[in-house]
Amino acid sequence: MAPLKAVDEALAEICRAIAPLTPVKVSLGQALGHVVAEDIIAGTHHPLSDMSAMDGYGVRSCDVEAGKPLQVVGESAAGHPYRLPLEENQAVRIYTGAYVPEHCDAIILQEDVTETDGVIMPPAPVEAGRFIRKRGQDFKRDDILVPKGARMTARAMALAALGLQSQAVIQRQPHIAILSSGDELVQAGGIPRFGQLINSNAVFLGAALEQAGAQVTDLGILPDETGALQKAIPDAGAYDLIITTGGASVGKYDYIVSDLEDGAQSRLDFWKIAMRPGKPLIFGAMGETPLIGLPGNPVSVAVCSLVFLRPIIGHMMGRDDLSLIPQEAICTRDLAQNDQRQDYLRAIAENKDGVWHITPFERQDSAMLHKLSQANALLIRPAFDDAIAAGDTVTMALLPDNF
Amino acid sequence: MAPLKAVDEALAEICRAIAPLTPVKVSLGQALGHVVAEDIIAGTHHPLSDMSAMDGYGVRSCDVEAGKPLQVVGESAAGHPYRLPLEENQAVRIYTGAYVPEHCDAIILQEDVTETDGVIMPPAPVEAGRFIRKRGQDFKRDDILVPKGARMTARAMALAALGLQSQAVIQRQPHIAILSSGDELVQAGGIPRFGQLINSNAVFLGAALEQAGAQVTDLGILPDETGALQKAIPDAGAYDLIITTGGASVGKYDYIVSDLEDGAQSRLDFWKIAMRPGKPLIFGAMGETPLIGLPGNPVSVAVCSLVFLRPIIGHMMGRDDLSLIPQEAICTRDLAQNDQRQDYLRAIAENKDGVWHITPFERQDSAMLHKLSQANALLIRPAFDDAIAAGDTVTMALLPDNF
Repeated sequence: MAPLKAVDEALAEICRAIAPLTPVKVSLGQALGHVVAEDIIAGTHHPLSDMSAMDGYGVRSCDVEAGKPLQVVGESAAGHPYRLPLEENQAVRIYTGAYVPEHCDAIILQEDVTETDGVIMPPAPVEAGRFIRKRGQDFKRDDILVPKGARMTARAMALAALGLQSQAVIQRQPHIAILSSGDELVQAGGIPRFGQLINSNAVFLGAALEQAGAQVTDLGILPDETGALQKAIPDAGAYDLIITTGGASVGKYDYIVSDLEDGAQSRLDFWKIAMRPGKPLIFGAMGETPLIGLPGNPVSVAVCSLVFLRPIIGHMMGRDDLSLIPQEAICTRDLAQNDQRQDYLRAIAENKDGVWHITPFERQDSAMLHKLSQANALLIRPAFDDAIAAGDTVTMALLPDNF
Repeated sequence: MAPLKAVDEALAEICRAIAPLTPVKVSLGQALGHVVAEDIIAGTHHPLSDMSAMDGYGVRSCDVEAGKPLQVVGESAAGHPYRLPLEENQAVRIYTGAYVPEHCDAIILQEDVTETDGVIMPPAPVEAGRFIRKRGQDFKRDDILVPKGARMTARAMALAALGLQSQAVIQRQPHIAILSSGDELVQAGGIPRFGQLINSNAVFLGAALEQAGAQVTDLGILPDETGALQKAIPDAGAYDLIITTGGASVGKYDYIVSDLEDGAQSRLDFWKIAMRPGKPLIFGAMGETPLIGLPGNPVSVAVCSLVFLRPIIGHMMGRDDLSLIPQEAICTRDLAQNDQRQDYLRAIAENKDGVWHITPFERQDSAMLHKLSQANALLIRPAFDDAIAAGDTVTMALLPDNF
């Protein structure tokens, strides 16, 4: 029997075999949350001209002396600029956000002067630049507004729009096909008869992979017969990744491995990982499209999604935030020595005064979806881990949002 | 001059004035990430019948003795159950996920016996229940699968589907109208002429509020003239909340406050908060629909979104995860004593060995969107905070994902 492949080795091998996706240009709105693949450059200065930061009077600072009258020659409001240059001993009534006229270089606050018959008398000199937002103070034309590699945020979208950009180049999201193997399966919304089962894995994967940034197409249910895989996906090239669930084990009716091995256009790269749950994980390809075969148990599907699928989607999209983040926790229960498989125990983690305490469920049945839905963390035990006593420090990872 | 209203008081007052939204029934797919407003109840047992957890032979445990032959009378595979009761000294070939026949109560692993001419001879007795997943082991009909108040996850969606539910009652998402006040504004995608400015606030709010779970309608630009607010929203009742930006200050061209005060169907509740930025924040209503008026500066809009809009959306949707989470950090710079306004300094926070260090930007101009887009945290200073020396502990909050 071939030795089981270690988790890290399997993940690294899959990532080497799958190229990151080519960038694509989209509207700013579609870019939210995605990794920007090309710098977004300002197409203009902001502000475009010097602008008043306050309500008051725009003046030439060289004219201003205590008690010396200045003539108010007009008004500059946001959207309605005063369009003439300011001449000697002139002032303009000005409002926040209004562009300042030529030669105007300071603002006197409205509360500091009184306008009488079109004249103000500033009480004191004013320094040049006072309450003026300079042309290009926020950014200048050709400045990098959003650098390559950054995630697009709502703030970055607003900034790009202010810089006259309406599109962004992002790492394209992978198009993933999911296929569920098993004659017992009925698609969600149907009524299972005796011996049948709702295909909850497709519901789970559709939601979980879209949350991770992928576009998902559910290709439905694969019958338990030889060659079904090829029949179900005549156009593997239409997808960036194919994910199957079920049919991955060694039973008489498990055909994914043999279909990959026997297909003229398909390939089995490796099978069986030193992990629990998820041991029967398959990696192969149909044509040029990589295929990951997961076991059929819902808990295995969830754990393999965290350990493999989300990091692989991250790899394809240039994102490093989709991998599990291991951290320390205090285990609240005794656990027996571990065997050769890295173990992912479903658990409840609680933070007490900044320290995580983790309690794995007593029953770890990989068919139990109800219990799984109550977990908020995985306790991760390396292969051959020594027995653990309550109070020992272990490694855990919190489950991601909406997972 | 009326004293400024404290942030916490203003937020509490707004939340008291706005009722949480009525629940609404949606498909499971639409419920992802939302708060479930009614328990989701199992419509069936899972499994529906006893099920094999392994590949092997299903037997009646009372028949099994070491070396005693059992006749293999058929096969039970997933989706193809053996439909007769198991009779004395009979066995069925059985596979993982297959339903077990009546009277069958244990599975003998395929690796532990050899089938010869339709007969197996188990090597040892087997205990009842061995490798059987009992009917209802995952959940029973009428069990609560997803409790009221829980957030809908991908796992919970799969679980609900398995329990024959295709819909969920969730807290309805608020429908928010946004209106941007200012004659200087040009909608994103247009080209600003001299004196004009791209309306980046609408781009920001559209993305940020949708990220927080709201549905956003951009009602465009409000001209700087009296009564414009009423003209722009003849049907305030179509929205759960109206948000304006700009026109909130004391300038000659700031009409939001006076339009609210003067409108026959509108109301000003309060205006001006003891915060920086964001002081001119307005709370009122048009008809029955609450209105929050934000200042026009993009940094004020972002900070008010974090401090007010996200918590208010959370309040409307029954979610408590949209508020800022204050935490301790070490300040890396000296800061002067604070005045009567709670201060939200844009900053970079870095975690070093589990301890957050925070460095507020030196310039805190509320018109500077570029700098704002680089912040990952706010340093929060209470009103009248003493001067801070580098190394002092302060309060900060990290900015949310995709914000």
